[in-house]
Amino acid sequence: MNASPAAFEARLKTNAREIETLLDALLSKGMREDEIARPEILRTAMHYAVLNGGKRLRPFLVVESALLLGGDKGAALRVGAALECIHCYSLVHDDLPAMDDDDLRRGKPTVHIAFDEATAILAGDSLLTYAFDIIAADETKLPDQSKVALILALARSAGLGGMAGGQALDLAAEENTPDEYGIVTLQSMKTGALIRFACEAGALIAGASTDDRKRLRAFGEKIGLAFQLADDLLDVTSDATTMGKATGKDISRGKGTLVALRGIEWAEAELRRHVEDATQLLAPYGDAAATLAATAHFVADRKN
Amino acid sequence: MNASPAAFEARLKTNAREIETLLDALLSKGMREDEIARPEILRTAMHYAVLNGGKRLRPFLVVESALLLGGDKGAALRVGAALECIHCYSLVHDDLPAMDDDDLRRGKPTVHIAFDEATAILAGDSLLTYAFDIIAADETKLPDQSKVALILALARSAGLGGMAGGQALDLAAEENTPDEYGIVTLQSMKTGALIRFACEAGALIAGASTDDRKRLRAFGEKIGLAFQLADDLLDVTSDATTMGKATGKDISRGKGTLVALRGIEWAEAELRRHVEDATQLLAPYGDAAATLAATAHFVADRKN
Repeated sequence: MNASPAAFEARLKTNAREIETLLDALLSKGMREDEIARPEILRTAMHYAVLNGGKRLRPFLVVESALLLGGDKGAALRVGAALECIHCYSLVHDDLPAMDDDDLRRGKPTVHIAFDEATAILAGDSLLTYAFDIIAADETKLPDQSKVALILALARSAGLGGMAGGQALDLAAEENTPDEYGIVTLQSMKTGALIRFACEAGALIAGASTDDRKRLRAFGEKIGLAFQLADDLLDVTSDATTMGKATGKDISRGKGTLVALRGIEWAEAELRRHVEDATQLLAPYGDAAATLAATAHFVADRKN
Repeated sequence: MNASPAAFEARLKTNAREIETLLDALLSKGMREDEIARPEILRTAMHYAVLNGGKRLRPFLVVESALLLGGDKGAALRVGAALECIHCYSLVHDDLPAMDDDDLRRGKPTVHIAFDEATAILAGDSLLTYAFDIIAADETKLPDQSKVALILALARSAGLGGMAGGQALDLAAEENTPDEYGIVTLQSMKTGALIRFACEAGALIAGASTDDRKRLRAFGEKIGLAFQLADDLLDVTSDATTMGKATGKDISRGKGTLVALRGIEWAEAELRRHVEDATQLLAPYGDAAATLAATAHFVADRKN
């Protein structure tokens, strides 16, 4: 039931271009209704933060999950763009001197280096805010009920009980290395929650049944676990040139990862198991889910 | 058509207590559906940032505007709490070393002093996110259509084209003092947008007519202008003890204000004019709008 790797990557790239075209338009000079002005430095910093050459994996999951269940592609692209704004805001804030203090992101200066720290903080804040604007806006052609469900799920995935909380746990982990349960909680919040949302969002956009919503959400959870394990493995096995950012940082910072705790062999086997679980969850959809299944493999096999 | 100052202040205090009880509950240890964990340090920092002894003027405007037009008080309190989360996040981020670098806020250590800088950034992010959660949640008993309209208006007021954009202009103003038009734009974004939203939100909660919505929004604009002028006047006429924060800072930083540009006398007359305009806008509602009219006077006459 897999799409060929080449066909998959072409589809991923096409979707990334569509998302980027949309993000570029959303962050152009043109003001929206009720905006008083778009200060150029802040708009430019947001644009720089978002149009950064990412793979757009999260929006891809939104779009493919929505399409699988018969959702509207235009609406899915807008929700995907909103989600990417949240993901990119988190990168901007995580890179700040007071957080991970990173100068490079995908081989380019981070926002606080390219602009300044205050602008980076505000660009992150504004991207986070804009995500909810994009979903709620009239241009997102969805019933109000779906918009409210999407906004609630996104806020829960991104906030105190999700991604931002995960970053707080991550900072605390530099002081006190967490145990295995602590690591899994941290990771399911910091990276898992948004990926889970991406897949669940597809079901919400499609107005799918509760069963489908639960299934897509479970699929998203598995993809999230696979994504994080692959990331932790790359941190010990890859080099900075391939990754476009510093590697070996988890270890030098004393951060606990499952790879450090259980070893590379265990982690690679566990990664395979997550991919297997993820594809099993898609079985009821047959060939229609080939692209999502290929995404599970892509997440596990990526080299950067 | 004015309420007595004592009756007004009692009403403002009662509302502040109700908002604080709600915020305290929203930021308690109890997890919401779909939250994975509530990391204690982040939750505590958010709680500290929000339960800070503020006057709760914005939530008060939400509640009183809603009540004037027949809106549900419970829903208005929740929207007010959400708005207060946004206001408080902006204070936390504005106080950061990379921004205004303030150690004190209402006489207490700012969040990055009481906790640390990374926690302050994340607490701000999480409060901003939580605002949209609070409005979208089932506990906010409003039609989905109203929730979407509220979320859109709040995001527009708080983001690039509103409050956050205003803070970017404010930082730029330290380098190049803006002209009068620039100052008015900056202030209408940085402080005006959320106050305008507060009043417009009341109309949205009440499901009021477009006419009422426009009228409340215009009222909010006038209150916003009055609020800012009063603030600028206090910065030159008050002292740090009364304000609970450093004063004279606008001048020492070379920031342009209308007071600096046009003088105290002009500003005081302009302030009276805004209050007059604001109360005139309420004329069609008669005595029912006495509390909102008193709020306009309160904003202009406040001593801190």
